[in-house]
Formats: sequence, C-alpha cells, structure tokens
Amino acid sequence: MNYPNKSKKEYNKFTSYANRGMNLEELLNQSNEYYLLEDKAIIYKKPTPITISEVKYGEKERIITKAYFRTPSTLDYNGIYKGTYLDFDAKETNNKTSFPLQNIHEHQLKHMKSVIAHGGISFLIIYMNTNFYYLDGKNILEFINTNKRKSIPYSYIETHGIIIEQKIKPRLDYLKVIDELYFKEGD
Amino acid sequence: MNYPNKSKKEYNKFTSYANRGMNLEELLNQSNEYYLLEDKAIIYKKPTPITISEVKYGEKERIITKAYFRTPSTLDYNGIYKGTYLDFDAKETNNKTSFPLQNIHEHQLKHMKSVIAHGGISFLIIYMNTNFYYLDGKNILEFINTNKRKSIPYSYIETHGIIIEQKIKPRLDYLKVIDELYFKEGD
Repeated sequence: MNYPNKSKKEYNKFTSYANRGMNLEELLNQSNEYYLLEDKAIIYKKPTPITISEVKYGEKERIITKAYFRTPSTLDYNGIYKGTYLDFDAKETNNKTSFPLQNIHEHQLKHMKSVIAHGGISFLIIYMNTNFYYLDGKNILEFINTNKRKSIPYSYIETHGIIIEQKIKPRLDYLKVIDELYFKEGD
Repeated sequence: MNYPNKSKKEYNKFTSYANRGMNLEELLNQSNEYYLLEDKAIIYKKPTPITISEVKYGEKERIITKAYFRTPSTLDYNGIYKGTYLDFDAKETNNKTSFPLQNIHEHQLKHMKSVIAHGGISFLIIYMNTNFYYLDGKNILEFINTNKRKSIPYSYIETHGIIIEQKIKPRLDYLKVIDELYFKEGD
C-alpha cells in the first residue's frame, strides 16, 4: 500500500516487538478494528477528503480519473466510547525538541475546541522520540492560549502527555489513557 | 457540481419554497453548516471512501489519476449534539409504496445497532412521497427483526417516522425531531 495523500517523505516505520514495520495510521486502524471486534468502542478514520473532477465508466465499475486532495477541516478519527464522543488526530514528527504547531491547521484547532465545549473528548496522538503520546485537547488549547511559540516543546509533551502502551492487541491502547483521564473508578 | 460517486440516474431536486433545486446531500450540508455556525451541533458528512491507485505530482499539487469507489461500512454523517453521539444517513426513493431495504447495506445496519448499543443516536433521513422523514434506528431494527420483507412499507414510515420541517435556516431541521424524541423537557 502506498499513501500518496501524505507527504513525499518516507513514513516512519515503527519496529518494536509489538509492531513490525507499520506506520502510525496502520497501528491505529488495527487498534480500532480490535476495539470494534471487542465491542469496546466504535471508532473509524475518516476517508481522505477529495474533490472528484473526472469519472469514467469502466466495464465493471466507475473509475475516478481526476481528483484533488482537499484540506480536512476536522480531525481524522471520530466515534463513540462509553457513550462519549471522541474526535482526534494522529501526528508524527522527527523533531526531537519540539512539536511544530504547523502540523495542526487553524480550523482543526477550532474544531477541537468546539468538540470539547460540546461535551466530547478531543486529543492528539503524537509520535515523537520513539514514544506515542496522548496529548489532551485541553492541554493543547491551554498551551496555545498561554504561549506565542509556534511549537510545543518536548518538555511540555513529556509533562502533560501520557505515554500510550504498545501491545499486541490493541497495538496502541489509547482508550486505556482515556479511562484514566475520564472514566476513573470512584469519579 | 456533479456527483459521479452516486448512481447514474438523475438526482431528485427538491423545489419547495424553502429549497430551490437542491438535492438531499446539499440540503443536509447547508443544515449542518447552519448548526455549526449557531454552535448548536458539530456534524459533518464523511468524505466518499475511495482507494487511490495512482497519483502524479502536478506543478502546484498532487493529482489523483486513478482511484476506485469503496463501499462505506458506516453511515455518511456523524458528530455530536447536546453531548450525544449522532450517526445517520440520508436516503431517497422514488418508490411510493415502500422503501427498499437494499438501500442500506448489511454492515450499515450492524453499525446502526452498535451505535445505539453504545449510547449514541442513529437514524435515517428518508425522502419519499415529497416528504423528508426522520426514521429512528430503533424502528428500523425493530422492523427488520419482526419482518421478512425486503422493503419497509410506506405506512410503517408514516406511522413511525416523523416529518422533518423544511425551513430557510436550517433547510432541514432534523435536530428538532431529536429534541422531541430524546431531549424533551421534563424527561
């Protein structure tokens, strides 16, 4: 599989014991399939938004012969977990000292803020310095509101982010982090 | 705008006072834009799922030169309203006596059932006999569980469905129906 809708550069391939040569999208898709199979949550990646310009009718099916990529105005993943709406995105950076905010579009930030205001949970999964971090939308918005910086320092992610456990099933157990943050027993 | 990802046949164009020459998808997109603008709900149509096979690099942007349509395994629209997860689809039929169930894929029915089980609201918006009906997922599943028929009779839709009011803003006020069914004051 190639992912021409992403950037030209090679994808990071994560080669720990638990995940051999998969990129972040594949790891999340497998995790979501597992959650679905276990009837734990219903979470899907949204298809890549495109504008279709030309279609021809093949013998068996219609074939798109010209289309353009559109900038998404929402985040890539959404669904329902424990009756609560989830809306999130996955990002990766090779930068070791900070996460560049240009990775998140202005309307995506607005979307995160709105989701939280409506009672949903919004967050980013960030791959950085060989770890997968859960960074809650509330932290991201707080950082942006109190900083003029164009990138989030790694120290902020280490302090406010939570490392997502890598397992066989699911590959990235990010719902476990949500359990800790939002559905802790005794709350 | 053409919609080659739909069937070959012409779209119904609804030409009441409130909506001049728009198809169901356009009416819903405008309604959702209005809800978003009014900060009432965050609901988007998912992009058409496609499998990209060939991409070339144009001067300014990447161009998809070969892609295929995929069958969606979920419903087209989802989001959050009053803290609750919504997941629904829009269908239209020119059939006057019944709504053919072949309009809904098997995995879409499974998805509706699962969404409801997880605490979300799932439904169909059906355009039939010049009305837009809200038909709750619970009714659809109940019909399928108690009938062998391959279509839902119009009488069932008239009895169990709720007519969606057509207005200027929003074009189709389906959230009003949800208010009546799920968020009625005094509940």
